[in-house]
Amino acid sequence: MKKAIIAGSIGALGVTLLNPSAAFAADDIPLDDVQMILDNTFIFFAAVLVLFMQAGFALLAAGLTAAKNVGNMMMKNMMDMSIGVLLFAIVGYHIAYSGSSIIGFSWLWGGYSDAPTTDYSLMLPVDFLFQAAFAAAAATIVAGAVAGRTQFKGYIIYTAAITAFIYPVVVNWQWGGGWLSELGFQDFAGSTLVHSVGGWAALMGAIIVGPRIGKFGPDGKARAIPGHNIAIAMLGVFILFVGWFGFNPGSQLAADVEVPRIAVNTLLAAAGGGVAAMITSWIKFKKPDVSFAGNGILGGLVSITAGAYALDGYMSAVAGILGGVIVTFAVLFFEKIRIDDPVGAISVHGVCGAWGTIAVGLFANGNAPFLDEGSSGLFFGGGAELLINQLIGVVAVFVFVVITAGALFYGIKKLGLLRVSPEDELAGLDVAEHGVVGYGPDFIPSMVAAGGQKGAE
Amino acid sequence: MKKAIIAGSIGALGVTLLNPSAAFAADDIPLDDVQMILDNTFIFFAAVLVLFMQAGFALLAAGLTAAKNVGNMMMKNMMDMSIGVLLFAIVGYHIAYSGSSIIGFSWLWGGYSDAPTTDYSLMLPVDFLFQAAFAAAAATIVAGAVAGRTQFKGYIIYTAAITAFIYPVVVNWQWGGGWLSELGFQDFAGSTLVHSVGGWAALMGAIIVGPRIGKFGPDGKARAIPGHNIAIAMLGVFILFVGWFGFNPGSQLAADVEVPRIAVNTLLAAAGGGVAAMITSWIKFKKPDVSFAGNGILGGLVSITAGAYALDGYMSAVAGILGGVIVTFAVLFFEKIRIDDPVGAISVHGVCGAWGTIAVGLFANGNAPFLDEGSSGLFFGGGAELLINQLIGVVAVFVFVVITAGALFYGIKKLGLLRVSPEDELAGLDVAEHGVVGYGPDFIPSMVAAGGQKGAE
Amino acid sequence: MKKAIIAGSIGALGVTLLNPSAAFAADDIPLDDVQMILDNTFIFFAAVLVLFMQAGFALLAAGLTAAKNVGNMMMKNMMDMSIGVLLFAIVGYHIAYSGSSIIGFSWLWGGYSDAPTTDYSLMLPVDFLFQAAFAAAAATIVAGAVAGRTQFKGYIIYTAAITAFIYPVVVNWQWGGGWLSELGFQDFAGSTLVHSVGGWAALMGAIIVGPRIGKFGPDGKARAIPGHNIAIAMLGVFILFVGWFGFNPGSQLAADVEVPRIAVNTLLAAAGGGVAAMITSWIKFKKPDVSFAGNGILGGLVSITAGAYALDGYMSAVAGILGGVIVTFAVLFFEKIRIDDPVGAISVHGVCGAWGTIAVGLFANGNAPFLDEGSSGLFFGGGAELLINQLIGVVAVFVFVVITAGALFYGIKKLGLLRVSPEDELAGLDVAEHGVVGYGPDFIPSMVAAGGQKGAE
Repeated sequence: MKKAIIAGSIGALGVTLLNPSAAFAADDIPLDDVQMILDNTFIFFAAVLVLFMQAGFALLAAGLTAAKNVGNMMMKNMMDMSIGVLLFAIVGYHIAYSGSSIIGFSWLWGGYSDAPTTDYSLMLPVDFLFQAAFAAAAATIVAGAVAGRTQFKGYIIYTAAITAFIYPVVVNWQWGGGWLSELGFQDFAGSTLVHSVGGWAALMGAIIVGPRIGKFGPDGKARAIPGHNIAIAMLGVFILFVGWFGFNPGSQLAADVEVPRIAVNTLLAAAGGGVAAMITSWIKFKKPDVSFAGNGILGGLVSITAGAYALDGYMSAVAGILGGVIVTFAVLFFEKIRIDDPVGAISVHGVCGAWGTIAVGLFANGNAPFLDEGSSGLFFGGGAELLINQLIGVVAVFVFVVITAGALFYGIKKLGLLRVSPEDELAGLDVAEHGVVGYGPDFIPSMVAAGGQKGAE
Repeated sequence: MKKAIIAGSIGALGVTLLNPSAAFAADDIPLDDVQMILDNTFIFFAAVLVLFMQAGFALLAAGLTAAKNVGNMMMKNMMDMSIGVLLFAIVGYHIAYSGSSIIGFSWLWGGYSDAPTTDYSLMLPVDFLFQAAFAAAAATIVAGAVAGRTQFKGYIIYTAAITAFIYPVVVNWQWGGGWLSELGFQDFAGSTLVHSVGGWAALMGAIIVGPRIGKFGPDGKARAIPGHNIAIAMLGVFILFVGWFGFNPGSQLAADVEVPRIAVNTLLAAAGGGVAAMITSWIKFKKPDVSFAGNGILGGLVSITAGAYALDGYMSAVAGILGGVIVTFAVLFFEKIRIDDPVGAISVHGVCGAWGTIAVGLFANGNAPFLDEGSSGLFFGGGAELLINQLIGVVAVFVFVVITAGALFYGIKKLGLLRVSPEDELAGLDVAEHGVVGYGPDFIPSMVAAGGQKGAE
Repeated sequence: MKKAIIAGSIGALGVTLLNPSAAFAADDIPLDDVQMILDNTFIFFAAVLVLFMQAGFALLAAGLTAAKNVGNMMMKNMMDMSIGVLLFAIVGYHIAYSGSSIIGFSWLWGGYSDAPTTDYSLMLPVDFLFQAAFAAAAATIVAGAVAGRTQFKGYIIYTAAITAFIYPVVVNWQWGGGWLSELGFQDFAGSTLVHSVGGWAALMGAIIVGPRIGKFGPDGKARAIPGHNIAIAMLGVFILFVGWFGFNPGSQLAADVEVPRIAVNTLLAAAGGGVAAMITSWIKFKKPDVSFAGNGILGGLVSITAGAYALDGYMSAVAGILGGVIVTFAVLFFEKIRIDDPVGAISVHGVCGAWGTIAVGLFANGNAPFLDEGSSGLFFGGGAELLINQLIGVVAVFVFVVITAGALFYGIKKLGLLRVSPEDELAGLDVAEHGVVGYGPDFIPSMVAAGGQKGAE
């Protein structure tokens, strides 16, 4: 009888739809296909974890900034996914991985008819799913750095440009088989290609949009603008931490014997970064700081993203520990030079992204069985060659993003679409840009706003 | 030595428990079994993603309603899972998939002894896990629409009736092999069977329980009752978005080559819905609305749930875009006819569920290799036949749910268990129904309540 | 052309890194390897779900305690992961699973070169990943019970001791092949080994640190100290619920035919616990309590953690239902004997952990095909032998943890590092210990604090 239940369940679908698994009838499943399906299933779930990171970015940025901008931050992260996915499907994916055609509508037509490849690689749609999630992540990094004073119209322009053009071009250089990959540059999951791209774009955005009102006093000294909600901000850190286990292990692009090692390297770097940033902040401020510790975990994760494949466990922890120290001093540095980055995105993604990439040139372990001898870093017998390649990549991406994102934000500014008016900034972007309050008057009585919240009337 | 560690680890379990994986000894694994295990493992994780959606529903509804009802909303969603799972195990699952017996205790007894089937289909428990998560989702949809004024006792009755009876009967019509599936109706993952069922039940609940006090002024015009927390509400959207990658791809009920395509269709529809609702709200209200954009993502997802298998990528995006437009106007429509749905559940799940089902009749692409020619929609050479079948299904489910859920809510009302007193509604359901405050007096000073919070004294 | 895109994508990685999947070339994939990879991939994702539980623990504890300590709670949970992972890598893992060496640096060196084993068992790094996530969970349980009055320095000492020593020793007794496993004790996923260890350590911490100021009045009676945020607390419950599907099914340590059954048992116990605690609290307090219901779900989950393999579906629901009743009365009991456990951690993890372990001795179903006859519980024809073994294990772990954790907390107290000053407790740990406010003055105006929030200046 139980089998009847199952049969009914399966049968019902079989009636209405072709049953594709019929191709795998009892004794004619080729073993190749099972491994291929396993690879694709693995990357599918990895992509889901990376998509979940959008929630983490949203909460981190929303929590570390003001309550009056919370709806705006959530909105931007939803739109990073929405706009980013559509543009990456039509434009960015083709720039990144074909290099021959800029715009490619055709793959979305006719049901991806030639999608399943036969050589154990990924099917086209699952590859797109994974890569689109990365593109959205790169764009999302910027939102936190320019939080609290950027027009929504300007935001739409820059996020579109990053997912459709800036990020795909850089990806094409390496993962698309371009000049960086031919040079011998190594960036396993994107310390430079994803995080630094986002981080340096955030840098240019923060510079060109300028600091929030009141961030730097008349004396030029930075003043604390406390985030409004450490609970959701650190929940964001936890979600990003979890999502990173899709980001890094998934970048192996196959379910194979290397995945567990990559995952442990990721874990050790996150742990090292968290502990190191906690201690560093304790020494600097006399007390262990919560959001620095959270950013330390993220800094550790960014620091191992390039080397999760190439480093062994110890050096992964060391890379993460140094990342935790670096992110702390970087945050203080950018504040000192009066660049206002409310969530530390430039430090976490830009600076640690560069550090993580350089760390491969120092720590890649060519003595380990999984690397070529020629792929060793400076401290593991490989000489300076890999390190130099890594530095070339870091600098090239920095220069490209600074120029393109700089031009982008400058152009948006010239169009008068970059910064909101001082009145709107003080009133908060939720009311000014969206006509809503993020927290109702029953929750924060002082936030009763003109316009109310239309979303769920 | 490392192997010794592993051996110790595995051995320890082997000592105390039978090791079932011993069945898979070195050279006698049948290949069929590996694919079968992969199928079941895939559906297991897909079910976990769908279960996670309960958190998304809870946060969305809690965030878009008043702070004084936040504990009540979280409670209802926890109980949708708890009550729903138990009733679906004993009653609903049998109505849905056997059709012969209403109540089936026996499958839970004796360790599901005949659970593993041998024809590459799912094992009974994983099928139950996945289907139970769907049942809980269908019931949960209602809670948001009747938020803020419904008795907890009445809630228990209706959620039990939906998971034990209304939802399973509809599922039996299609996935259980009933008359809709014989007709040729197509609903891949449940735009109609899950979402419209929840949405139309929400419609009847909202009508019969009536609007919240103060929602419609003496002039009959709707007034904004802002949600209290856009941060958790939009986190709910992100969680639902992520969970949908279990909902749709998992509905393939096998780890096969179609899964990635289904996932990308889901992603494109979500993105299209988000962008379209943002733009629509921008045009309507002069500003891009946050919660409309979030509901647009959800509307896009519901709109592709029926067609994730049958549409190609372009048409998936189009279905989602139209879903994002539809959900916006539907929310305004229900408000205009004075039906108070605080979270937009009727529009997102009921209306977009109907739209997504109809979209299959329009856009199903019989030219693609994965569909029969006979399964094409109107715009892809299939004529009106499929469209008519889809309309029959949409109408039939609408009529059935309106009648059964209408009778259900009417009966609860007659028992005096549907609506709380005006005093309780104004005081908030947390205090009135649960004797707690959702937010402590240190967080919202105005919420000091009689009774305090007993939960964690 | 699409293949070219894929080839470019894969090729780019192939250029820079050895492609390990090359080992799986077309016709020479041994079937054993596919099942092995599937096992390891399954445990990888299960470990990710368990790591996600850290977010659940953090939110639950933060939400059920005061707003002035929210940053401290998030910090502790981030550090449980960070400190815990590093210490478990270097010390704890070796105590737990080798028993021969206390400290083992070497496995992290040289890329885990001998990691892949060939007998269908787990690879070393994925085993570590899964076990490390468990160790962090055990330590995290304590933080909620001593919330609001514990020094951060004292916290670091105790969490380090638990992950490096107390938890690993207990694990060695059973999963490491020690005396409990030889005795015939059964604890599938750790009702005793993980949850009771955390729960009894929490008990000793709560006793030795003493109750929060104001928890017990001059008359000795308990007074309610409401948690500040039921929304994030119950989100924590949902996340823990979802993570448990990594915790229990993953403990099978293989992707096999038993996993779905274990998952359904877990689901039924959670549902039973939630319903039972709701009803019990309704009877006791005249109203159904929200956080009791949440703790009931968790109590149900802990109650099936030992028996998820050995019980059938019915008895899993029964174990969970009884767990939901037990947790409710246990919370009231500890309050009555004036032990202040703000989140109910001792009841959920300690008491239900013991109950779940004993339940195996009562309900293990030796008539089912998956168990030996000799493994039956008292009510299923196995006599008292298994029950006695279970009781021995429960008592032994209780005694060991009470002594070691008692000495630990007592020692920390003697060092003057356990409890904060009354001034600091009243001011809140966020300001006193971390120099930040968890919620900004724009969110909770009364929380303007000396020092401000440095984290994201």
